[in-house]
Amino acid sequence: MKVIQGGVTAPIGFEAAGVEAGIKYQNRKDMAIIWSQVPCVTAGTFTSNVVKAAPVKWDMQLVADSPFVQAVIVNTGIANAGTGAEGMRCVKETAEAAGKALNLPPKAVLIGSTGVIGPLLPMDRIKAGISKLVEAKAHTPEAGTNAAKAIMTTDTVHKECAVQLSIGGKAVTIGAISKGSGMIHPNMCTMLSYVVTDACIGKEALTALVKADVKDTYNMISVDGDTSTNDTFLVLANGMAGNPEIKPGTQEYEDFAKALRYVNETQAKRLAGDGEGATALVECIVTGADTKENARILARSVISSSLTKAAVFGKDANWGRILCALGYSGALFDPEKMEICYEGGGQKILIYQDGLGTDFDEDIATQILSQPEVRILADMKMGTETATAWGCDLTYDYVKINGDYRT
Amino acid sequence: MKVIQGGVTAPIGFEAAGVEAGIKYQNRKDMAIIWSQVPCVTAGTFTSNVVKAAPVKWDMQLVADSPFVQAVIVNTGIANAGTGAEGMRCVKETAEAAGKALNLPPKAVLIGSTGVIGPLLPMDRIKAGISKLVEAKAHTPEAGTNAAKAIMTTDTVHKECAVQLSIGGKAVTIGAISKGSGMIHPNMCTMLSYVVTDACIGKEALTALVKADVKDTYNMISVDGDTSTNDTFLVLANGMAGNPEIKPGTQEYEDFAKALRYVNETQAKRLAGDGEGATALVECIVTGADTKENARILARSVISSSLTKAAVFGKDANWGRILCALGYSGALFDPEKMEICYEGGGQKILIYQDGLGTDFDEDIATQILSQPEVRILADMKMGTETATAWGCDLTYDYVKINGDYRT
Repeated sequence: MKVIQGGVTAPIGFEAAGVEAGIKYQNRKDMAIIWSQVPCVTAGTFTSNVVKAAPVKWDMQLVADSPFVQAVIVNTGIANAGTGAEGMRCVKETAEAAGKALNLPPKAVLIGSTGVIGPLLPMDRIKAGISKLVEAKAHTPEAGTNAAKAIMTTDTVHKECAVQLSIGGKAVTIGAISKGSGMIHPNMCTMLSYVVTDACIGKEALTALVKADVKDTYNMISVDGDTSTNDTFLVLANGMAGNPEIKPGTQEYEDFAKALRYVNETQAKRLAGDGEGATALVECIVTGADTKENARILARSVISSSLTKAAVFGKDANWGRILCALGYSGALFDPEKMEICYEGGGQKILIYQDGLGTDFDEDIATQILSQPEVRILADMKMGTETATAWGCDLTYDYVKINGDYRT
Repeated sequence: MKVIQGGVTAPIGFEAAGVEAGIKYQNRKDMAIIWSQVPCVTAGTFTSNVVKAAPVKWDMQLVADSPFVQAVIVNTGIANAGTGAEGMRCVKETAEAAGKALNLPPKAVLIGSTGVIGPLLPMDRIKAGISKLVEAKAHTPEAGTNAAKAIMTTDTVHKECAVQLSIGGKAVTIGAISKGSGMIHPNMCTMLSYVVTDACIGKEALTALVKADVKDTYNMISVDGDTSTNDTFLVLANGMAGNPEIKPGTQEYEDFAKALRYVNETQAKRLAGDGEGATALVECIVTGADTKENARILARSVISSSLTKAAVFGKDANWGRILCALGYSGALFDPEKMEICYEGGGQKILIYQDGLGTDFDEDIATQILSQPEVRILADMKMGTETATAWGCDLTYDYVKINGDYRT
């Protein structure tokens, strides 16, 4: 597997675009399309929030029932959540308008929305945006980047990624675009993440891969503990690479799974590192746990702790907050036996061992905590299971951004 | 029942003091004593964090085993958590020193600590502090207030409270001091809250009351989602009011329970409203829930949401975040049927109904959100169960306080 330039237009047969539709913001791209020249199998996971946005409900049904999908239409600015039956009508109209423009049944059009909860979508602008998107879509790197930019809200950088691997002698490509930033505490998947591939793979195999992947990627990040109403992670596979169908239990399946995991982990880390107001990516690696699930619970608890996050922002080696967050995670362990290290910028120090803080060098701790990527290593000394979770620091800017989000 | 002036020195036979012991800070009171002239029965609840501070372990054992208790010694500045066997030795030495000075067995001395996790207690200063406390203790309102002040860390106001009621013709008094501020997401009880009473009541009855109370008081507040290693809630009853023993199933029991609930709810609200950096108390009242437990889960989820908290700080009527937090709470409900209102400063507005935001007046919403006490009312329209939870807004000062706590 090799990492290549590009995003959702890297695989064969996928076109994309991002345009200014004026949904809520002016003078910025706020609608995106991903379109495949041929029908795709699809798999996805969605928010576990009881309050599901209208486009989430629509996509869930399509992933479950639709014989194929061929396009994704996304708008930013308005989440189309908390909008009741009206919101569902907007989604349906969007799919119908896109289907008409693309010569597809509406049920082949997946829909994504992100932004403020509550307002109804301005359907005239959505429809005008669809016309622009259909006209602009192209199989170029720039078109893919435009789509990645158009799905951003408070993200500070766009997030695209692509890899290539060989399957049965054919080059298979996977590309992705994602957006995150706030209301990030995915519980099934993240805000919006779209992965496309030209691999030939069956729906069942793709679904199994997606379910396995989210547990260790999008479900292991948190910005603020708030699970969004709009979380959507979709994979579309159009088979245009011409590889023999990827079947479970084969080496090709393992290779594809590894490549897909790389893409999802990369995008998940980027979502965490670009959390609202963040100045650092915080990675917690738990080792020596008794079960995989406990490893995940422990790692997530550390990167979700407001106090641990604020201490990273302040470059303050206040390791007691890490110990505390492990302790209230819900997983059992012996605080007298486990160990905690800081790692970053090529340095690593042991800060807690045998039930006591070590006599660590505060200057080195401050240097590590000043890196853009800070790692917290917790060895539970109970078994062999490991897990990694990603978050960010808690800053003044998080409060600023969210004290005044609607205006 | 009537509310009276004072705190832990209001009930008969209780003395208190707060002194400067120089544990971590200079020129501020940082050690407190509560002492009863006669032995007390006691009940308490403690943090559910796997990492329990040494004094928590000590108190848990005393509450379980000790035939009586008669004193509480508290220090601030250092939590004595993450300190292993050394930490336990410090607790034992503290109890021994206090026992000697007060002519009590060490196992009659409860210990509390709060502050930074990790460092060991300076035992020479602790012992000198105990001497000062024993000398200074008095049955005066000022002495009680001094104790309330001495247990503060980042609290901006001290928190004491007292009520009086008549039981069997005798005046019975309950008094309390509490501290909170950060690392507040109690799961069994809050940081430190000490309630004393001169009521005559058996250990079993007192234990039952404490267990019932915490569910609706200290367990319903959150400042930052971080469950501390030191959470301790203790009630001491010395029987000096001379009332006939309060027995379960009697009117006197109900009256006492109501008074105790008032004290605990008052202190819990004060802890939430004085959360680190807070400018407003946020109260979420859930009505119409299907079960009591779901009502509690829903109310807690709203006041714990970083995004809802930041929106209150920004006086931004972004009700979608409330709906979102209800949705990811874990409790099931129909988003199309429930209703949400804001209430505060004598005004109340309906903001969400029938699956849609209402056409509410933004100016009134801003007025309500600018009050020092903001209420969020969520009517789930499913049943008759209710619960109330208390939190605070998320501000720049929370980040400032916790970015640089140790220095």
